[in-house]
Amino acid sequence: MTERVVLAYSGGLDTSVAIGWVAEETGAEVVAVAIDCGQGGEDLDVVRRRAIDCGAVEAVVADAKEEFAGEYCIPAIQANSLYMDRYPLVSALSRPLIVKHLAEAARYHNATMVGHGCTGKGNDQVRFEAGLAALFPELKVVAPVRDSGMTRDKAIAFAEEKGLPIDVSKKSPYSIDQNLFGRAVETGFLEDIWNGPIEDVYSYTDNPAEQREPDELVVTFTAGVPTAVDGKELSPLQIIEEMNRRAGAQGVGRIDMVEDRLVGIKSREVYEAPGAMALIAAHQELEAVTVERDLARFKRGVDQRWGELVYDGLWFSPLKGSLDRFVAEANRHVSGEIRMVLHGGRAVVTGRRSESSLYDYDLATYDTGDAYDQTMARGFIDVWSMPAKIANLRDRQQG
Amino acid sequence: MTERVVLAYSGGLDTSVAIGWVAEETGAEVVAVAIDCGQGGEDLDVVRRRAIDCGAVEAVVADAKEEFAGEYCIPAIQANSLYMDRYPLVSALSRPLIVKHLAEAARYHNATMVGHGCTGKGNDQVRFEAGLAALFPELKVVAPVRDSGMTRDKAIAFAEEKGLPIDVSKKSPYSIDQNLFGRAVETGFLEDIWNGPIEDVYSYTDNPAEQREPDELVVTFTAGVPTAVDGKELSPLQIIEEMNRRAGAQGVGRIDMVEDRLVGIKSREVYEAPGAMALIAAHQELEAVTVERDLARFKRGVDQRWGELVYDGLWFSPLKGSLDRFVAEANRHVSGEIRMVLHGGRAVVTGRRSESSLYDYDLATYDTGDAYDQTMARGFIDVWSMPAKIANLRDRQQG
Amino acid sequence: MTERVVLAYSGGLDTSVAIGWVAEETGAEVVAVAIDCGQGGEDLDVVRRRAIDCGAVEAVVADAKEEFAGEYCIPAIQANSLYMDRYPLVSALSRPLIVKHLAEAARYHNATMVGHGCTGKGNDQVRFEAGLAALFPELKVVAPVRDSGMTRDKAIAFAEEKGLPIDVSKKSPYSIDQNLFGRAVETGFLEDIWNGPIEDVYSYTDNPAEQREPDELVVTFTAGVPTAVDGKELSPLQIIEEMNRRAGAQGVGRIDMVEDRLVGIKSREVYEAPGAMALIAAHQELEAVTVERDLARFKRGVDQRWGELVYDGLWFSPLKGSLDRFVAEANRHVSGEIRMVLHGGRAVVTGRRSESSLYDYDLATYDTGDAYDQTMARGFIDVWSMPAKIANLRDRQQG
Amino acid sequence: MTERVVLAYSGGLDTSVAIGWVAEETGAEVVAVAIDCGQGGEDLDVVRRRAIDCGAVEAVVADAKEEFAGEYCIPAIQANSLYMDRYPLVSALSRPLIVKHLAEAARYHNATMVGHGCTGKGNDQVRFEAGLAALFPELKVVAPVRDSGMTRDKAIAFAEEKGLPIDVSKKSPYSIDQNLFGRAVETGFLEDIWNGPIEDVYSYTDNPAEQREPDELVVTFTAGVPTAVDGKELSPLQIIEEMNRRAGAQGVGRIDMVEDRLVGIKSREVYEAPGAMALIAAHQELEAVTVERDLARFKRGVDQRWGELVYDGLWFSPLKGSLDRFVAEANRHVSGEIRMVLHGGRAVVTGRRSESSLYDYDLATYDTGDAYDQTMARGFIDVWSMPAKIANLRDRQQG
Repeated sequence: MTERVVLAYSGGLDTSVAIGWVAEETGAEVVAVAIDCGQGGEDLDVVRRRAIDCGAVEAVVADAKEEFAGEYCIPAIQANSLYMDRYPLVSALSRPLIVKHLAEAARYHNATMVGHGCTGKGNDQVRFEAGLAALFPELKVVAPVRDSGMTRDKAIAFAEEKGLPIDVSKKSPYSIDQNLFGRAVETGFLEDIWNGPIEDVYSYTDNPAEQREPDELVVTFTAGVPTAVDGKELSPLQIIEEMNRRAGAQGVGRIDMVEDRLVGIKSREVYEAPGAMALIAAHQELEAVTVERDLARFKRGVDQRWGELVYDGLWFSPLKGSLDRFVAEANRHVSGEIRMVLHGGRAVVTGRRSESSLYDYDLATYDTGDAYDQTMARGFIDVWSMPAKIANLRDRQQG
Repeated sequence: MTERVVLAYSGGLDTSVAIGWVAEETGAEVVAVAIDCGQGGEDLDVVRRRAIDCGAVEAVVADAKEEFAGEYCIPAIQANSLYMDRYPLVSALSRPLIVKHLAEAARYHNATMVGHGCTGKGNDQVRFEAGLAALFPELKVVAPVRDSGMTRDKAIAFAEEKGLPIDVSKKSPYSIDQNLFGRAVETGFLEDIWNGPIEDVYSYTDNPAEQREPDELVVTFTAGVPTAVDGKELSPLQIIEEMNRRAGAQGVGRIDMVEDRLVGIKSREVYEAPGAMALIAAHQELEAVTVERDLARFKRGVDQRWGELVYDGLWFSPLKGSLDRFVAEANRHVSGEIRMVLHGGRAVVTGRRSESSLYDYDLATYDTGDAYDQTMARGFIDVWSMPAKIANLRDRQQG
Repeated sequence: MTERVVLAYSGGLDTSVAIGWVAEETGAEVVAVAIDCGQGGEDLDVVRRRAIDCGAVEAVVADAKEEFAGEYCIPAIQANSLYMDRYPLVSALSRPLIVKHLAEAARYHNATMVGHGCTGKGNDQVRFEAGLAALFPELKVVAPVRDSGMTRDKAIAFAEEKGLPIDVSKKSPYSIDQNLFGRAVETGFLEDIWNGPIEDVYSYTDNPAEQREPDELVVTFTAGVPTAVDGKELSPLQIIEEMNRRAGAQGVGRIDMVEDRLVGIKSREVYEAPGAMALIAAHQELEAVTVERDLARFKRGVDQRWGELVYDGLWFSPLKGSLDRFVAEANRHVSGEIRMVLHGGRAVVTGRRSESSLYDYDLATYDTGDAYDQTMARGFIDVWSMPAKIANLRDRQQG
Repeated sequence: MTERVVLAYSGGLDTSVAIGWVAEETGAEVVAVAIDCGQGGEDLDVVRRRAIDCGAVEAVVADAKEEFAGEYCIPAIQANSLYMDRYPLVSALSRPLIVKHLAEAARYHNATMVGHGCTGKGNDQVRFEAGLAALFPELKVVAPVRDSGMTRDKAIAFAEEKGLPIDVSKKSPYSIDQNLFGRAVETGFLEDIWNGPIEDVYSYTDNPAEQREPDELVVTFTAGVPTAVDGKELSPLQIIEEMNRRAGAQGVGRIDMVEDRLVGIKSREVYEAPGAMALIAAHQELEAVTVERDLARFKRGVDQRWGELVYDGLWFSPLKGSLDRFVAEANRHVSGEIRMVLHGGRAVVTGRRSESSLYDYDLATYDTGDAYDQTMARGFIDVWSMPAKIANLRDRQQG
């Protein structure tokens, strides 16, 4: 029986060519697998047909948008995860989802190999292959772009030679990866890090500098999960879409940064993630209201590590699993409403309301009704400052 | 000989009354000490004269703005210090400076006591007293507002009874603390955390929603210290003032948050810190360009702890001293230029340029000239993913 | 109706006197609550009768040894918790258990107050009162030793005056706290930290320097919980008792240290915890075999924080709750057998065996059969060392 | 001109053969570099002559024992560095030293290549190559054992064929790496992790179970550096040698563990490090006496990360450099004397004495003369327990 390879398929030039390229290289039959994580673009049926037309023996397409929203984006919000304090892990979140579907398809179709179109200097090759090593380590990886010289020029030549039904003429100057949670853009002129991005780079967000009316809304969270906007209950997918639309219209969520890649180099990246950035801002503020101080302080380190692991391709790792338990427990009481104003590129929280608030007006107020026992402060300060006091005395004596 | 108390003096109603109140309470002579940390307001000579007129036997006033900028604000920028990821430690930074001057004045004037006007539920009492415990633990603390019932009403009655030269009529609805690095506002209606701030609350920043032209500038850093704006060399004080002016004019640096106080409660705080927020954003991005990945990841935890210590009143602690060494070394190569656009409440980095950049165009580019050896990736991924791969195999076997 | 106070009762001089002292001080009826955490000594019925004879209106005694072992000691083993890398939290673990029973008794007996015999400079007062604040904050705390001058001399005088049935003549030179998990000793001559402990200090452990035969045993763990010794299934209580007996007979588990108290000072402490130290050593080694590297590295920080929280009296805190979830998940596969030799004060692991081992002979061996693909190393090293390589190049260029 | 390769040379079979092997493989001249890190064995002159006899064009030998002790072992003591809480980094410490000498020799002899005899599944290849990447990235690495099939059998055949002056008959069953700081042993029967080590495995330590007299000594530290034993000032090298001798004679410092290798697998390792373990124990206890609590708590995390970096081959990394500053500052006051008893495999601290002690008898004592103000405790506890108290109230209300 002929061997089979499942190929992560996008419908674009590179992976369309890869169908034939991989088939020739390996002698195997190619099963194309396309996953809709909300990247938009063509209809899944069109994508499926193109895969077949390009030589795939099977083409699996799956609408995984709800799954992506609920099982990948929501945990990222609960962990406030911003790699390097800025990047909400857009591409890094979708890779384990795709890997999961690839592994399932490989089992179903008895594949012995898996193919992807990643280059050898990006993070995504690691995320794909580390994910596959975790879920289905027996699969052999085929990576034509990285390992067998399938450059863009050669891909175009291959497509023309084989008469593949792909339009090779339209060449975008941008290298783009996008999904429900955001959009990443790389391009030649941004590789000079002194150059600023131009408006043409953006697609999910309108120009924040343009004059327009602010948009005020209220997001409801239940145990750290956004569950409603302006009182209307929505699924995770619907909420992220709604927030993308409204925050995007106000220019919220543009990110321009130099980033530490897992593969050892720094790279320039431009992102747009309007819904993600607005929802994380809202979630952080609701945590400030409902999470106890020591837990909040420790959680910052957990959130950082969670984001690093996901960025680093270790979604399916034991540490990720244990951090997930911490994050879930810490979110248990993160319920309530956050009012925000979206405007001019900013998502600004202006109000918080929660049944499980730890903010206590009676303790906080300076008005009459103050319930805080101020006579306790003196003892607290005395004990609190004692270790540093003793050390400073010693330091002065020791000179 | 009559005992002496050094009193942290602001020139306002409370501490002006405290001069006489503390003198009566303790039988000691009062030496008023006023420190200019850039809080603006009255001339220091006017403040000095009022202290004397209110009964102080001596009045020490000191312009500590350069010292505050260089030795307190700059280290905070180098540590990117944002308490709870948001608050740049405005008041928390000035307290140790004031404490240092109080301790020096106490030694010079042979004081045995020190007085302050803090309440018993805020952080500042801790910062004052923990700082004094570290620098001059023999001083007895007198805190009339917290410990001997000097409420605002009693203070006004005291002022009127003694005929003190203070205008007791003007009552601001806001409780304000401000200095070079920013401004903190508390007020009754903000104690309802569902209420948003009104424009009247702000003074260092213009309304970000107003239409105006963007302001583009270039900040130069040397070893993590901002040293020039638009190519013009400036002292730390001058740079923070310049950035306050320009970022403030664009509405940058407003913060509205629920905050975990050291004294165990959550409180609502509104801050403005235009220069601080713009400079920290610039510094963070220059770090992204010049600091190696593992160091950058670890430094996030160090920065967090640094900020917590300062917030918690432990400026003069051994841990702070050791973290300082780490932060200074990590900043050794944080030199170069950051171009930012200030506009609509946002300070957005658009360019970076550095002789000590770790961003390497030849490694990062996807153009011809790419120097990255992509054949190495496969081995890296294999080893990188091995621990999680083995663990997942085990997990599947164990069920 | 007369108010009631629940009193943490040990049966000893101090708390026996406290029954009457607190009754006189508060005018309330005293309900004595004695909890058996394995501290040994008198029969609980004797203790109960003494409480009544000393004036308690009710005396509650509870054998909480199984509860203490299973719900307090076992989690400490799973977190390898050694405060300052040495002290297995003996007293710190029993306080929240006692607090829980005090709070339950207070609810049952409609008490409005709670009493304890702690001094004002130890950790235990914090553990009692912080625990009560968490579980039953409405209770008013009465602490006669700390707050109303009940010194030892006054206690003896009170006992003699009232004719209490307590032998006041036997005065141990040692201040001792002991329970199932270990024993803490303080005494005058150890307050000079240059003095070593003498043999007389110890009770749970025999002299490790004495010549005797080694004792070899096998401990079985299931998900981080010790479940059998030498193949015989035992309850947590039975295992800790068995290990105390056998490790104690070999002099294992003596600790002599200078310790950072929560209340701001350093103190000298001598502990014995034979079972605890042997079980933690076994658990750590089984973790080394069954826990993945990144998880193990992060867990060290979690374990440290867990121990600090418990030491610091914050057992009932939200952070503790979230750390518990992490620790439980990390222990999911910590199952298997550890062979140890107990001898000469040392508990030395000599063998490990586990169905869920991550140690893979085929990958580790240098013999024929080696399954490790050594050709991958080169790529790994190239990428692994790249960030530091680039940084060193920069450093040399920058000088 | 013929190219040159510097070869890390030990004098043993593998690297002696590698001289000719590498010369044939590369066509280059081989410069052998042997570094004495205290591994004992043959005289350096003998080693040098053998290198020449085996075909090296130059042979550099260097006594680096003082350098190794002072610049590598001492910092490890100051960081209490124990990988996985147990292994004092013996081999990991010597690799950067050797790398430094290799890089210097390469510059001096105009080499373009560097050779080592490591396999492809150990940590040392990473330490060599990552170190060289940092110090001299232009050097091409030649690794005959890993990359060109130089197995032991082939090495023996090569030696016999070329008539190399090496005794190929004596085959130790053990694979050993040793230096001043300790000794690592791997061997076939230990690859079964249920097997315990036998006495024959050990060389630096006598059997701890044998009956002998205890050895009491006093170690003096100055700023974290051991400077004297029993009052006699010694160099770092002399102190480690002295402690190896005396602690080794008492069986101190044996370690048997399953270890997480950097290259992704777990391995079984047996170590002996008598001096290292005794000195780290002494240093830790002196830190307990002289380092303030918050600093000590944070330093545990720093120490862990320091050890991981060194284990992971990143000695010459920016993070290591910044951690070094932290560790040095934290050790500033770690001065004083530690009395220990070495006996039966244990190094037990029995006394501490320090001019810079933070232990304050007057604060710690329960005797008369107690200077601790116990009335402060109540206020401390009230504030300390408030966040958890409020959270527990909320939790009960929320159910």
